[in-house]
Amino acid sequence: MPKEPPVVDIHTHIYPPTYLSLLRSRKTVPYLLDLADKTLPPRLIILPSDDDPSLPPESRGRPIDVSYSSIEEKLKFMTNHHITTSVISLANPWLDFLPPEEGPKWATTINNELESLSTCNPGKIYAFATLPLSAPPQAIIQEISRLKTLPHIKGIILGTTGLGSGLDDPALNPIWSSLQSHSLLIFLHPHYGLPSSLYGPRAHEYGHVLPLSLGFPMETTIAFTRMWLSGVFDRYPGLKLLIAHSGGTIPFLAGRIDSCVQHERHFPEDQGTKTRGPIRSLDTVLKDNIYLDAVIYSGTGIRAAIEKVGVEKVLFGTDHPFFPPLEEGEKKWKSVFTNLDAVTEGQDGEGAGAGAGAGKILGGNAIELLGLEVG
Amino acid sequence: MPKEPPVVDIHTHIYPPTYLSLLRSRKTVPYLLDLADKTLPPRLIILPSDDDPSLPPESRGRPIDVSYSSIEEKLKFMTNHHITTSVISLANPWLDFLPPEEGPKWATTINNELESLSTCNPGKIYAFATLPLSAPPQAIIQEISRLKTLPHIKGIILGTTGLGSGLDDPALNPIWSSLQSHSLLIFLHPHYGLPSSLYGPRAHEYGHVLPLSLGFPMETTIAFTRMWLSGVFDRYPGLKLLIAHSGGTIPFLAGRIDSCVQHERHFPEDQGTKTRGPIRSLDTVLKDNIYLDAVIYSGTGIRAAIEKVGVEKVLFGTDHPFFPPLEEGEKKWKSVFTNLDAVTEGQDGEGAGAGAGAGKILGGNAIELLGLEVG
Repeated sequence: MPKEPPVVDIHTHIYPPTYLSLLRSRKTVPYLLDLADKTLPPRLIILPSDDDPSLPPESRGRPIDVSYSSIEEKLKFMTNHHITTSVISLANPWLDFLPPEEGPKWATTINNELESLSTCNPGKIYAFATLPLSAPPQAIIQEISRLKTLPHIKGIILGTTGLGSGLDDPALNPIWSSLQSHSLLIFLHPHYGLPSSLYGPRAHEYGHVLPLSLGFPMETTIAFTRMWLSGVFDRYPGLKLLIAHSGGTIPFLAGRIDSCVQHERHFPEDQGTKTRGPIRSLDTVLKDNIYLDAVIYSGTGIRAAIEKVGVEKVLFGTDHPFFPPLEEGEKKWKSVFTNLDAVTEGQDGEGAGAGAGAGKILGGNAIELLGLEVG
Repeated sequence: MPKEPPVVDIHTHIYPPTYLSLLRSRKTVPYLLDLADKTLPPRLIILPSDDDPSLPPESRGRPIDVSYSSIEEKLKFMTNHHITTSVISLANPWLDFLPPEEGPKWATTINNELESLSTCNPGKIYAFATLPLSAPPQAIIQEISRLKTLPHIKGIILGTTGLGSGLDDPALNPIWSSLQSHSLLIFLHPHYGLPSSLYGPRAHEYGHVLPLSLGFPMETTIAFTRMWLSGVFDRYPGLKLLIAHSGGTIPFLAGRIDSCVQHERHFPEDQGTKTRGPIRSLDTVLKDNIYLDAVIYSGTGIRAAIEKVGVEKVLFGTDHPFFPPLEEGEKKWKSVFTNLDAVTEGQDGEGAGAGAGAGKILGGNAIELLGLEVG
């Protein structure tokens, strides 16, 4: 049988043991809550709304079983889904919540741990590092520089708040500059969602559906659009940004965003300030600087992603260990196959029918972009 | 020369004179502010953030020139863009803000005015009515019933808040029931956007770009998803909903929404309440109940819309008089041509390459759906 072309999972998370110990040591959000019944997994209290003492402990937040923390479970999952190589990243909320003085040491420890997981699994595991964003810029830049000594670290994961006030914050300039000069890919990932008031008084009837399916991609879209509007890609044209969940909603809204920017130029005096769009158009930035993962669960989404950034800039991902199968113990994850089928299936099915592009999306693009040695 | 196939504009707004007089009589948001210099158009103070006494009057809110209120201007615009027929609708914020007892009389007056604009321009103008949503349900239903006596009223325009708490409000059931039994199309349109805090401390530098390009489609997406999750389309399977701006972001996010609903069923106990998805899947509802306008400014957007609801359920629109041209006095509106090209241009351009479907989207679908006599 001919060897299958490699499959690279670019969007796959882990809470390594050190990170769980950090969360376990805390008593305020985010924190890990061990249950009295030790046969049950601990609960991660990640959002203020999870921290509800009126609920029994076993109903607060979400269960964090071994699939979240064990590299063996990750490798089993990869085998079951014919994934050759995973580029793992710390799951949210990363280190955003730490006091400034504690960020750097935790970042160093966790990034070293990610590097060591990679070294022990050659060709199977690479990683995106995490940055101590609550620390002073100089400490963040120091960690970015240090990452070049860790050969399996291929980029960094970044939430939407940056240093606290969004990715259009000019205080991020030295960070962008450092990431650009070290050619580190930035993996932009949501965490904070939208205010729960938007989901209305009956939101609890829909579980996590609204914040997870809408809040996450909308948060991502707003964060990226602010970043672009503020001229980050004018100042750092070499930045490479991989946007989670196929860009949130950017491929679909790009035309509308562009149209609004052009319209705004028509009456800047309305704002009492001179408004201008960024120098580099959204289309140019999408083509030059933006990569999108293929975690969008539909052929329609993948096609839109391909059209906006090009087939060589869309990269397969699973979002493991999130979206597990409906039935306990099921080895094949429906969420994974929905995304796989969306890339590989033909025009008549639900898939993107990417044809020759499918191999690139499933692995070739990641291998080339990050210089991976897979297998 | 062969006669051009008809073009129908399904998304085109007006503030008829009576509505402007209503706004002019008010001193709180929303209201119309006449300027001392009568050569300048009055300003519409539509959002609380517009009502800023620190700005000079001529910089507050937005200018409302004759293109917003004059049917002659609408007809000129139609001629300039080869639009055969327009289905006009009141622009936001409709009548949502009225005290309960005042809603019905204003709705009756304005709907009669829309009917009369249509009667005076046969084959050129039809309309979507507005409902007195702040009034008691019985009064709303009475106005819905009365609309059947107005032959040019082909549906109703609806904001995202319904009776005040969203479109998943069970108190809307009699309204849905009445709209279904009278076969009135519901045109779902955004107004309230997202909280401005989401756009961060530098949002003023970007003018209206973030609320208009992102807030509007996100508001629409959330409103529809709540409506679907609450089972409205299970209870009223005959409802027909036309969603503005090609569904906000629904075509792109449909796969993710569906995936999240399936995932949620896996651990309903986490919410302390039994969570279930609606009986009719999102795909079924999109295919059976949902129409999308073609106001998305890109071929990528139109293609995604067509894929999700079918080529016979996407309908051309302009969003006139919003998004006027950059240069004063320009007769051809770029925003209109961007949307036209998105429908008609080939696969190699930016357009959807809808081929034979282009004629349907530009006019045929609206004529058939609403039973229009055009020309």
